Amino acid sequence: MKILVLGSGTAARHPDRSAPACAAATGPAPQAERTHSAIAVSDDGERWVLLNASSDIGQQLRATPALRPRADGQRPIRAVVLMDAHIDHVAGLLALREGPPLTVVATPAVFEDLTTGLPLLNVLQGYCGVRWQALPVAGECGRSDFVVPGVPGLAFAAFAVPGAAPPYSLHDGLEQPGDHIAVQVEDLRSGLRLFYAPGPVPRTGPVQACMRGADRLLVDGSAWPEAAATARDPVGPRVLIHVQPPMPAPRAGAAAQVELAYDGMEIEL
Amino acid sequence: MKILVLGSGTAARHPDRSAPACAAATGPAPQAERTHSAIAVSDDGERWVLLNASSDIGQQLRATPALRPRADGQRPIRAVVLMDAHIDHVAGLLALREGPPLTVVATPAVFEDLTTGLPLLNVLQGYCGVRWQALPVAGECGRSDFVVPGVPGLAFAAFAVPGAAPPYSLHDGLEQPGDHIAVQVEDLRSGLRLFYAPGPVPRTGPVQACMRGADRLLVDGSAWPEAAATARDPVGPRVLIHVQPPMPAPRAGAAAQVELAYDGMEIEL
Repeated sequence: MKILVLGSGTAARHPDRSAPACAAATGPAPQAERTHSAIAVSDDGERWVLLNASSDIGQQLRATPALRPRADGQRPIRAVVLMDAHIDHVAGLLALREGPPLTVVATPAVFEDLTTGLPLLNVLQGYCGVRWQALPVAGECGRSDFVVPGVPGLAFAAFAVPGAAPPYSLHDGLEQPGDHIAVQVEDLRSGLRLFYAPGPVPRTGPVQACMRGADRLLVDGSAWPEAAATARDPVGPRVLIHVQPPMPAPRAGAAAQVELAYDGMEIEL
Repeated sequence: MKILVLGSGTAARHPDRSAPACAAATGPAPQAERTHSAIAVSDDGERWVLLNASSDIGQQLRATPALRPRADGQRPIRAVVLMDAHIDHVAGLLALREGPPLTVVATPAVFEDLTTGLPLLNVLQGYCGVRWQALPVAGECGRSDFVVPGVPGLAFAAFAVPGAAPPYSLHDGLEQPGDHIAVQVEDLRSGLRLFYAPGPVPRTGPVQACMRGADRLLVDGSAWPEAAATARDPVGPRVLIHVQPPMPAPRAGAAAQVELAYDGMEIEL
């Protein structure tokens, strides 16, 4: 499985250029500026699944030739999985409005938000067209396994995680399962698994079980060093994404196997 | 008057890196990649009016310290004038959702589009709040003079120009006055005038009269070399914006006083 970090930052529009980076994290020199967090995953490097369509997607696509439309008109981006309906994670859908119909994988709560308060999916119908692949994480159902058509080498699982709906949501103030998800991606050839949670995760239950079994964690850097505690040992190497400087230094001993994601980071799993 | 070219490109997401630039245009080496066209104007370099909020606004703000929010919480961007309601020109409004209420200057047609089909103004009400300054270019009224609160040194005039409503518009297919405007900006101290028309303009009438009297024209480069014919002599220096490579070479003699805009270009008038 190939993983591309398209953006590694938080929603803050104006990062502090002078902020010190996480002192104990490993990896290349930290970026002074980061675009909004989003990643892409692929089984073969040719067909990709986007996890969030960030509002910086224009800049991110310009920096990522692998994701640009092909000469044959086919989209390298076969689907977009939405982790929630917050503006910074969905506004980029508008930039994907040219080409063949776009497959959007989203929970009922997110689908409702994007067809009512901020009806981006309705708007896209007037351009490329949208195929909504419903992700039944709602009510009592806190987990849903799914595959993306055209990307046979990857198996996905979505988990309900905490988080409020956006202010424009019709159900703003009434947090409901499916407003936010975390996603596990498994490479079916190798069996290796990525767990992607760019926001808060519950401290117990099936999400923790999945995180413990993951071969790579991409977790919320804005909550560091708390993030270190949310995945109990043994876990695979952690990569912090959704980073807002300044980063406090992690506690002694907690920095082992912690990397700071950066825009353009490539992970092979 | 200070003019900043935030973005100089067309809506094409994936410009051709190898395309030759307009052979006869003057100015620095053309950019291989351009963000979506938008400019900012100011009377003092401290308070700015944005003309369009492009979907690349995140990248543009990161590149333009003068437009970033100040420590005192005030917006350097005092207002956004919308030239139309097309996605590439309005999607950036979402990135301006933090801070004090945002003044949006727009025609009734554009206001309707942004409160119905793509209700970005409604969404902003849930964040910073919006003050709509109505620009009465509609029906028989093809011109409207206006000022922007807090920017006393500039006088604006908006003109109806041709152009269809976006596909998501409730009146899509029924082109109406106010769907698109061109804007004249006059520096009240010097009397010098900018005419900004990043799209098609009528060949006759008051728009042509204004263009002939302008000290600087910022006109649609995607229509070049036709753009050269849309402003008859005598006119001030022309700058082509909204550029989509490849640029055909202008006709002999037409290239005098033609510059190609680029992202980050600064013009003092």
